[in-house]
Amino acid sequence: MIKQITSLTNQTIKDIRALHMRKEREATGQFLSEGLKIIIDALDLGFAPQILVYGPKSDNGTDYHPLLKRAIDETLKAKGEVLEVTREILEKISRKDNPQMVIAVFAQVNRTLEDIDPQTNDVWVALEQVRDPGNLGTIIRTADAAGIGGVILIGDCVDPFSVETVRATMGSVFALPIVRCTREQFVADRKRWTGSVVGTLLTATHNHRTAPYVRPTLLLMGTEQSGLTPEIAAVCDTHVKIPMKGRADSLNLSVATGIMIYAAAGL
Amino acid sequence: MIKQITSLTNQTIKDIRALHMRKEREATGQFLSEGLKIIIDALDLGFAPQILVYGPKSDNGTDYHPLLKRAIDETLKAKGEVLEVTREILEKISRKDNPQMVIAVFAQVNRTLEDIDPQTNDVWVALEQVRDPGNLGTIIRTADAAGIGGVILIGDCVDPFSVETVRATMGSVFALPIVRCTREQFVADRKRWTGSVVGTLLTATHNHRTAPYVRPTLLLMGTEQSGLTPEIAAVCDTHVKIPMKGRADSLNLSVATGIMIYAAAGL
Repeated sequence: MIKQITSLTNQTIKDIRALHMRKEREATGQFLSEGLKIIIDALDLGFAPQILVYGPKSDNGTDYHPLLKRAIDETLKAKGEVLEVTREILEKISRKDNPQMVIAVFAQVNRTLEDIDPQTNDVWVALEQVRDPGNLGTIIRTADAAGIGGVILIGDCVDPFSVETVRATMGSVFALPIVRCTREQFVADRKRWTGSVVGTLLTATHNHRTAPYVRPTLLLMGTEQSGLTPEIAAVCDTHVKIPMKGRADSLNLSVATGIMIYAAAGL
Repeated sequence: MIKQITSLTNQTIKDIRALHMRKEREATGQFLSEGLKIIIDALDLGFAPQILVYGPKSDNGTDYHPLLKRAIDETLKAKGEVLEVTREILEKISRKDNPQMVIAVFAQVNRTLEDIDPQTNDVWVALEQVRDPGNLGTIIRTADAAGIGGVILIGDCVDPFSVETVRATMGSVFALPIVRCTREQFVADRKRWTGSVVGTLLTATHNHRTAPYVRPTLLLMGTEQSGLTPEIAAVCDTHVKIPMKGRADSLNLSVATGIMIYAAAGL
């Protein structure tokens, strides 16, 4: 059954809006995803919304998009809630003046290191203390496009389920395992990585193209500001650098990670 | 002489704030740049601010950063204005609650196709109708790090002098020529590009690594949504594709351009 909601003080609407806060996402294990394209990607990958929210028809009264009809049907079938709301409510939920007309609440899938088997893919990537939600989302998208195994987040990283990160993934957040772990957990798990463990460091002398990318390769990228910590750099077996022969002495993290993934995958 | 300003209605402050609007940037030929690091990069590259704005000392009353002193001195020497303002004014200028403590107004340097000589570098990049300010800034940063010749913007692109783009360049906006031209101007200039003119297209069959990157190489990247227009694709002599063996069928534009620049430069 589809519910119609017109009040901003409705408790479900309040709960959905609270998912902009990391604390609430962690307490509920839920996250927000905006836009029909990403929601359809999620359905294709086997994830149905727990709550699907959509806005009123436009004034010309045309029918709803057939993909929205599919999203409604699959949400109801999976016992999710479907809410038809006002444009004002959509704007409040999305915090934007021109909101996407469909927004969904999904359950987070949180994996641990034990959940992944390094042998199931040739290349994996681990990010230590990534700080920028857009960078993280873009890296997850690149990982999905290149077909690598998954993304491991080491230490105090930005939340992979923030609205900004999910938006930048363009749906890839549903497509591959995302693992969160502490530095200690990662170091303890290091022995399972029997291929090359390649750290990217500005101080390295090896060109990134010439590293021995023995399968399964694990790429390690550090934080935007200062790179890998000494603790994580120490457990790599190769250190490489992306050469910069120009003036600027660093690359954006998502660009650097893209270059590394394509070099390691030999694509 | 350093002026102290405490009123938000001061005309200079109003003029500076207006530079968030593209119309005002184009009318004045000026742009805003935030943060001491970028301003020092500009000075190192020979560009002094027309107006330098900085906030009050923090409460513990320590001295100003020595680099701020350098920026003040060089701005005054170049006959620029130096304004000491309140924190409230900085917040209004930067539109942020936690503003950078130094903001500067610079003159735009706008180049035309005739200003650049393809033979002076091995690799150049041209972007058609790039829409996202962050993508453009990140691409300019990558171009600067890789040491390529410059960035050509074809058709209706986002403004390279917007606050968001300048921030994402991390200072590289001052480092290499940025050319704006129409599609017609680019097509007319095509004959000067005597090396490989390589278009990146999702429909291409050649792998991006195996293209003949004859110097000087010009890389052509299309818009985020739909790639190169047929008109621009038609003037390329090679079409390549970055392979995607995973699920997602596209890459973020700044990541794709980074991968292409590094492939073409052979770095």
